[in-house]
Amino acid sequence: MSYGDGMSSTRTARSGERRAAILRAALEVIAERGYRGASLAAVAERVGLTQQGLLHHFPTKEALLVAVLEDRDRWDSVPDGQLRPDLLASLVEYNAMRPGIVQTFSALLGESVTEGHPAREFFTRRYVGVRGSMAQVLRGAYGDRLPGGLTPEQAAPLLVAVMDGLQYQWLLDPDAVDMPGAFRDFMALLEGAAVDRPS
Amino acid sequence: MSYGDGMSSTRTARSGERRAAILRAALEVIAERGYRGASLAAVAERVGLTQQGLLHHFPTKEALLVAVLEDRDRWDSVPDGQLRPDLLASLVEYNAMRPGIVQTFSALLGESVTEGHPAREFFTRRYVGVRGSMAQVLRGAYGDRLPGGLTPEQAAPLLVAVMDGLQYQWLLDPDAVDMPGAFRDFMALLEGAAVDRPS
Repeated sequence: MSYGDGMSSTRTARSGERRAAILRAALEVIAERGYRGASLAAVAERVGLTQQGLLHHFPTKEALLVAVLEDRDRWDSVPDGQLRPDLLASLVEYNAMRPGIVQTFSALLGESVTEGHPAREFFTRRYVGVRGSMAQVLRGAYGDRLPGGLTPEQAAPLLVAVMDGLQYQWLLDPDAVDMPGAFRDFMALLEGAAVDRPS
Repeated sequence: MSYGDGMSSTRTARSGERRAAILRAALEVIAERGYRGASLAAVAERVGLTQQGLLHHFPTKEALLVAVLEDRDRWDSVPDGQLRPDLLASLVEYNAMRPGIVQTFSALLGESVTEGHPAREFFTRRYVGVRGSMAQVLRGAYGDRLPGGLTPEQAAPLLVAVMDGLQYQWLLDPDAVDMPGAFRDFMALLEGAAVDRPS
């Protein structure tokens, strides 16, 4: 390996770390202020860059937002065919330990329904995909009809709605809402096996 | 009635109409831009007032927001003890005919989870109340255990989550999501009577 190549790959690694640090900072700023309230200046300050330095990595605020969303999905995704219904409850338990990420996601989902929001297309596409994956997971586990009576295609949008809706209630009032417990109740409904849980 | 009194009550009526017009305009502007993106100037312009004129009715943007939220709840509320499970499905059908209101509400709910948002306390309080009302409605109809197996207190946060979560999916992609149909599927799950519906 030549000296020049070594320099270049070090620079690439540093650039990758810097990029990751920017995405983390952007997540935090969006969680605190929402996307519309966030500024590139605030993200640059948090990561110790000038605005000019930040613009070198992400030329626009929209580009940074899309990178944040894509990064989040890359981290969270489970390979097709390996997701099972019981892992969904684990995902919700995991989310309950990372309110910052959930807050960012929920704030962006909320904003995305306003006119011309740059995340709107991302979320629209994402939900088509998520409903499709969930239907596939449910069909793989239960066949064409779930024990509770619904088809996988009927259950999928409800499952996604429960996950999203519980996140808002939990973010607003974490002591009043047991998000993982409520999600398990919903899964039990789908499975026709709902029972009281000790509260 | 003296001439003076007549003038005064006319003035009160006009002020009430003006106030209602401002609240409608604020709803529209928030639906389009979110609360953080909305400005008093944009609301004033839409209703044909100067900013000074608008400030006479609502001294701050926060005061206007709270008035919008309270107004919405006043219009939508059903007297205690008169709400029944089947009316919830009607409410969802009604919401499907007024995307603007649903969009405003959903955008504000999303923003409310960001730090220091002026609607945060309103939504936190509102959800405590809504979960309580829903549990009461379910208990009135089904007693201490729903046919699907959950208690009213277990079902209430799920019911609210499904309503909110379906609204986001529907707003993003109205052709792909049958919001009232999906909500009826969920009620059938609670009632232990889920069946396939013609699609």
